[in-house]
Amino acid sequence: MKDPVLDRLLDGRTAILERLRELVRQPSVSTDPAYREGMVGAREILLARLRGAGFQQVRTLEAGGHPAVYGEWCQAPGRPTLLVYGHYDVQPPDPLDRWHSPPFAPEVRDGRLYGRGVSDDKGPLSIAVEILTAFLAVEQRLPVNVKLLIEGEEEVGSATLADIFVKYRELLAADAVLSADGARWRADLPTVTVGCRGDVGMEFRIQSAAKDLHSGRYGGAVANALHELAGLLASLHDADGAVAVADFYAGVTEPGAEERAWLAAIPFDEQAFIAGLEGVARGEPGYTTLERLWLRPTLEINGLSGGYSGEGAKTVIPCEASAKLTARLVPGQSPEAVLAAVEAHLRRHCPVGLRLEFFRNHGGARAYQVPGEHPLLRATETVLGEVLGQAPLRVKMGSTLPMADLVASLLGIHTVMFSFSTADEDFHAPNEFFRLSALDEGLRAWVRLLRLLGEHRAVDYAGFRDGTHG
Amino acid sequence: MKDPVLDRLLDGRTAILERLRELVRQPSVSTDPAYREGMVGAREILLARLRGAGFQQVRTLEAGGHPAVYGEWCQAPGRPTLLVYGHYDVQPPDPLDRWHSPPFAPEVRDGRLYGRGVSDDKGPLSIAVEILTAFLAVEQRLPVNVKLLIEGEEEVGSATLADIFVKYRELLAADAVLSADGARWRADLPTVTVGCRGDVGMEFRIQSAAKDLHSGRYGGAVANALHELAGLLASLHDADGAVAVADFYAGVTEPGAEERAWLAAIPFDEQAFIAGLEGVARGEPGYTTLERLWLRPTLEINGLSGGYSGEGAKTVIPCEASAKLTARLVPGQSPEAVLAAVEAHLRRHCPVGLRLEFFRNHGGARAYQVPGEHPLLRATETVLGEVLGQAPLRVKMGSTLPMADLVASLLGIHTVMFSFSTADEDFHAPNEFFRLSALDEGLRAWVRLLRLLGEHRAVDYAGFRDGTHG
Repeated sequence: MKDPVLDRLLDGRTAILERLRELVRQPSVSTDPAYREGMVGAREILLARLRGAGFQQVRTLEAGGHPAVYGEWCQAPGRPTLLVYGHYDVQPPDPLDRWHSPPFAPEVRDGRLYGRGVSDDKGPLSIAVEILTAFLAVEQRLPVNVKLLIEGEEEVGSATLADIFVKYRELLAADAVLSADGARWRADLPTVTVGCRGDVGMEFRIQSAAKDLHSGRYGGAVANALHELAGLLASLHDADGAVAVADFYAGVTEPGAEERAWLAAIPFDEQAFIAGLEGVARGEPGYTTLERLWLRPTLEINGLSGGYSGEGAKTVIPCEASAKLTARLVPGQSPEAVLAAVEAHLRRHCPVGLRLEFFRNHGGARAYQVPGEHPLLRATETVLGEVLGQAPLRVKMGSTLPMADLVASLLGIHTVMFSFSTADEDFHAPNEFFRLSALDEGLRAWVRLLRLLGEHRAVDYAGFRDGTHG
Repeated sequence: MKDPVLDRLLDGRTAILERLRELVRQPSVSTDPAYREGMVGAREILLARLRGAGFQQVRTLEAGGHPAVYGEWCQAPGRPTLLVYGHYDVQPPDPLDRWHSPPFAPEVRDGRLYGRGVSDDKGPLSIAVEILTAFLAVEQRLPVNVKLLIEGEEEVGSATLADIFVKYRELLAADAVLSADGARWRADLPTVTVGCRGDVGMEFRIQSAAKDLHSGRYGGAVANALHELAGLLASLHDADGAVAVADFYAGVTEPGAEERAWLAAIPFDEQAFIAGLEGVARGEPGYTTLERLWLRPTLEINGLSGGYSGEGAKTVIPCEASAKLTARLVPGQSPEAVLAAVEAHLRRHCPVGLRLEFFRNHGGARAYQVPGEHPLLRATETVLGEVLGQAPLRVKMGSTLPMADLVASLLGIHTVMFSFSTADEDFHAPNEFFRLSALDEGLRAWVRLLRLLGEHRAVDYAGFRDGTHG
């Protein structure tokens, strides 16, 4: 089936790849103020591209944090209005010494593009921008109304995205969200993701003395902040691997027979999964690995620090220690309740005399699920079946798209994930990569999806604009 | 009592302080190769001073690590030969942001000199060098034979000092060691230190997967190296604060009634001690604070690392974690046995599938005690009583002078500590300082001690040259 828009895209693949590389060269790390210039640089590239493509209302949307980039084309009356979502910020590149090529100097090796953010989310985002640009260039119009929102704070828990939705509620009004973020589960199996876990990040510090003390002069008689930290962290889980924090599981329902049967039918080799990571299986007893990943909440230590960690030795009793934690949430949990439960646990277990400081350091989103009959979900399933030659399986994902929860609560619409990155592409780790084959698949699928959605009517979406969680 | 050597020293105090500051400006951090130039600089200053003073055999003594500085004056036949000991290396200055003035730009404030190494051991060492220099300048001779050995590896557990003693055994032959290192216990109480704990440093790393993993995509199903680290560290002590490592206390004898009575008679306010640190009392039940500090061994965590510890959050499951530990040892324990016990404990508690690497990272010395009747100890007690106007109390110290153990084993002689730093001077912590009043006390005491030792005969020491631990 010949499509002039797709032809233009496939003919221009070299230039598309070069534009993606240009975007990846901007070190847009949102969590660390040292990367401010990279954030500005990425925004400027995107603003220029949207203006050049013929989008209207091209601008940044600001609510006190890193601005989002916005543009729209809304000249298809009667057709649905899609809020197309992606993000331009990326994870920190640490540990730098583990990268085989520099994180912000993208490099193609063996059919993969390597660089920080290529998979999460600059590659998938670029597919959306490129196909919208091609439609406007070839046909001077889009099949549906599109509002393109490119966030700058996804990697810091979408810190001010809620404020952006409130502040620009009218501008962003739409029938559904089509997300270019939210990686595909596996490279070997066509899937659509119908739900994700929520998350919330936190940090705590303890202080055991006014200053670091000599381990000989004082050792044996005073508390050591690192011993206390180890004890507090060890108290968070029981020996089986379940979270031992009181009220952590409050509101969480056990998976039902139907849900367990659905997961059990998905082809998945637990042993190969763990072996592929050179990892060690560990988790709540009584659940399969997929249940642990998709249906159960977690509390993970992401980092800790305290004392001397340089080369050699320093015989010190450290007076301070800290740890960063993230919880992944499932339906029934709220970020606030989980924060309160973990803080209460730490305060209850913190020995008398120690000073404990606890704070949220990262966003907070509830788990999300799209209704099974949503027309946009159905359309993506049809398109993936056509493009990949095999009907996709419905799956969930263990990670978080904070935007989906916010959009449901604040704009009253649902989100469908249509990303062409894959979960094994080492985002959030060294040597992040993006399969170049996914670029082709994505271009084909997005063009086909927009054509199919052009046959939808806006009123078809009315029954799903209820702001409830699916 | 007029003394021309002392007069010269007290008249030259300004120049003495300036020479001390020059030495402190050299960042001679032995544990970190980045400070190599500071090590070289400190050595060159000391070599030049010894040559200028009229010492003979001025040279470095090398055995594969940081060289020691050596010089001697041995023209007092029949008199004892003292091996005068000090060290020119210092602790790392971290955490740098806690210093009120830069660690290697020494500054006088309120009668104290601030800077890394001023108290441990460049201030006390300078007293010894200055008085020996003054004797040679005024009288062209010393009252006793002196071999001056200035080590460069005290802060890394005297890594190659044993090799130096073996290699230069003839050169270093002496009747006793007089140490300018080994701080005084308290500023408010004249004391002599008659024993110290030993120590050994170790480090371990665990690996739980081939790479860091996304906490959403994998969280709940795989081991997290930081959880495992916390569990291992928490297993090292029981809830009471005693070390829970099997065989750790093997060979340690309970304090006897006489020893407990001696410690109980020493004026010491436990509550004020802890409160002064803004600390929290913690230690083995059934012992007083002094018993915990002087008579009981410890196992302390000095530092740990793993995962993301920068600003903000990174939602990662870290695949690696590590910790540094130091044990302080008491009579009956050997560094090797304690290392073996801790390694066995970690291997036994390390969950199947995790990779564990364990290694010694810091020296290793047994505890040491000087015989109560040693003529050098008796002489220092006499001199301190004269100079300070009050007979000193015998005390022990919780920290380690690895040299004392090595000297006893390898040269067969005993060590008496005659330092004029004080244990509250924040060595091994930010804002290390040295009381300028101690400079005066030290100059007076060292001149008086050398005069008194000039009345001893070498043969008086023969009975104590047995190589046993006192």
